[in-house]
Amino acid sequence: VAEKITIALDAMGGDKAPEIIIGGADLARERHSNTRYIFFGDEPTIKPCMDQYPKLSAISEICHTETIVASSDKPSAALRAGRKSSMGLSIKAVHDGLAAGVVSAGNTGALMALSKIILGMIPGIIRPAIASILPTKRGESVMLDLGANTQCNVEHLVQFAIMGEVFARTAMGVLKPKVGLLNIGIEDLKGTESIRQAAAILKRMASDESNLPIQFHGFVEGFDVPYGTVDVVVTDGFSGNVCLKTVEGTAKLYSAFIKESFKHSFWAKLGFLFARPAFNRLRQRADPRRYNGALFLGVNGVSVKSHGGTDAYGFATAVGLTADMIAYGFVDKVREEIEQISHLIFSKSVT
Amino acid sequence: VAEKITIALDAMGGDKAPEIIIGGADLARERHSNTRYIFFGDEPTIKPCMDQYPKLSAISEICHTETIVASSDKPSAALRAGRKSSMGLSIKAVHDGLAAGVVSAGNTGALMALSKIILGMIPGIIRPAIASILPTKRGESVMLDLGANTQCNVEHLVQFAIMGEVFARTAMGVLKPKVGLLNIGIEDLKGTESIRQAAAILKRMASDESNLPIQFHGFVEGFDVPYGTVDVVVTDGFSGNVCLKTVEGTAKLYSAFIKESFKHSFWAKLGFLFARPAFNRLRQRADPRRYNGALFLGVNGVSVKSHGGTDAYGFATAVGLTADMIAYGFVDKVREEIEQISHLIFSKSVT
Repeated sequence: VAEKITIALDAMGGDKAPEIIIGGADLARERHSNTRYIFFGDEPTIKPCMDQYPKLSAISEICHTETIVASSDKPSAALRAGRKSSMGLSIKAVHDGLAAGVVSAGNTGALMALSKIILGMIPGIIRPAIASILPTKRGESVMLDLGANTQCNVEHLVQFAIMGEVFARTAMGVLKPKVGLLNIGIEDLKGTESIRQAAAILKRMASDESNLPIQFHGFVEGFDVPYGTVDVVVTDGFSGNVCLKTVEGTAKLYSAFIKESFKHSFWAKLGFLFARPAFNRLRQRADPRRYNGALFLGVNGVSVKSHGGTDAYGFATAVGLTADMIAYGFVDKVREEIEQISHLIFSKSVT
Repeated sequence: VAEKITIALDAMGGDKAPEIIIGGADLARERHSNTRYIFFGDEPTIKPCMDQYPKLSAISEICHTETIVASSDKPSAALRAGRKSSMGLSIKAVHDGLAAGVVSAGNTGALMALSKIILGMIPGIIRPAIASILPTKRGESVMLDLGANTQCNVEHLVQFAIMGEVFARTAMGVLKPKVGLLNIGIEDLKGTESIRQAAAILKRMASDESNLPIQFHGFVEGFDVPYGTVDVVVTDGFSGNVCLKTVEGTAKLYSAFIKESFKHSFWAKLGFLFARPAFNRLRQRADPRRYNGALFLGVNGVSVKSHGGTDAYGFATAVGLTADMIAYGFVDKVREEIEQISHLIFSKSVT
């Protein structure tokens, strides 16, 4: 019998809270039968909505909270006032062992700051990274960091590689994930000093038989991200953020181009009619709701950010990711691997 | 009567030299009637090909050179041995005033290194930047730097903004180009210290009536690049390179997705038949040959890199860009504007 997994949900975060939080949890409950939920937020608001989902109600409890973190709050303000909020208390539930993970569709900066301060970091991890799964030609990849750290040194990058690899191997179910470092070319001399040093360390890890199961592919370039050349794309938070948003923007642009193209003539319109099912398949494949969920890797607990504007279907994806990270013991695995490689990162031959 | 413009061409650079260099120049000649050409390279190879284009031959001369820069040569090797090569001598022709600009489809690193050393820099410009025009939803934008400088400080970014703005206003014909700084969010606090300082300087330039005609839009994000929110996207060479290659990769991926979608059923195949003209229009719109040409902005002369694998049509685009930069006096305009703003960049309030 699979163990029950309890997930804490910030019922007040996001544009359409608590409706999509509750509706999303109900969808997730169907897909992940071993989950149960604690909703943090304003009980008088949550209760009536909850009553519409009797099966969800049966496996959930509501924990009343008085305040919420506003979407406009700065992280610093959230740190001062947010500990008693629906967001802060849902994170605290993970710290206290009442839940094994937390999902919020609220303010990203606040969720990151509160997660770091309440959960702390996985021992040995210097900086948390934001990661996300993205659709590629070959299937799916995970990319990190997506904006938590605008500048990264060699240690940060190596740790991101390990966390990304563990995530792909556990939550994504990739047997031997290939790890790539994002760079501006594949030659050894390309990129910054930090990237070249990180590549040297990852190469040593990959070749050392007694060590981690990491498969280091080497450098990858911008076009490798949508193609899916590697399972794990490692980069600093600036390039990662730019790259992810560029993929999303270009995909949208292409959809718009296609729609426009089909308006040009009667024959084109007719063609569109016949081709509509094909287009719907394409749209489904790149549906952002299927990839909803930014993962705060490195904090000492599972903390996941849902897009604030998503619907119940999208929120359920984020909850599902959380359940998978918990089920496969992501945090423990990262802790173990970081211990194993500390001698490689701090060895003298690198500095 | 428009003045004649002489362009030096490295006839030996690129995968299909000299055929596409000569064929491309012939196409460019048709579009830009005031151009004439000097071809640098192995005369016995060039001459027979040239004879197939009598109109081009009539306005061209061939300058025999003995050596070529190989595509695998490191920039350092090119600097030692490349001055007497077809590439080096075509650049020297610009320095000596025999030509007003140079185009090569050869080794990028070598072309950049030789251009810097032979032409020098525009007075006041610290670092050259690689720029390129890209198609957007709104039309076209120029982005820089695309890889010449992996790390940039505030002065580099401000100078790139000025060069990009002048390029958009002259060679691209945009009346009041909007300039944006690539960042990971639009809030004032986002990004690195250099980016925030550069934004502060550009804001002052834009508001100072006595000053430059710069229209500073503020920060832009990854999705703004394919959308075309601004005419000039300014960033460091690392993010710019990643962003450009991501746009290209995602566009290719989408084309592949579309093709795949249309193979799923008889009706989809029929739809494709009707929609083919629409698709061809789409393909034309994003045709990389229409955007061929990486501009080395900041070197004291017009030096343009064509993609090595392009065809005559694509090479003609690069030659056309070169002609436009010359005709609108790009280098002189940058020199004037850099002089005007030196007090803003070096003022104490910034550092």
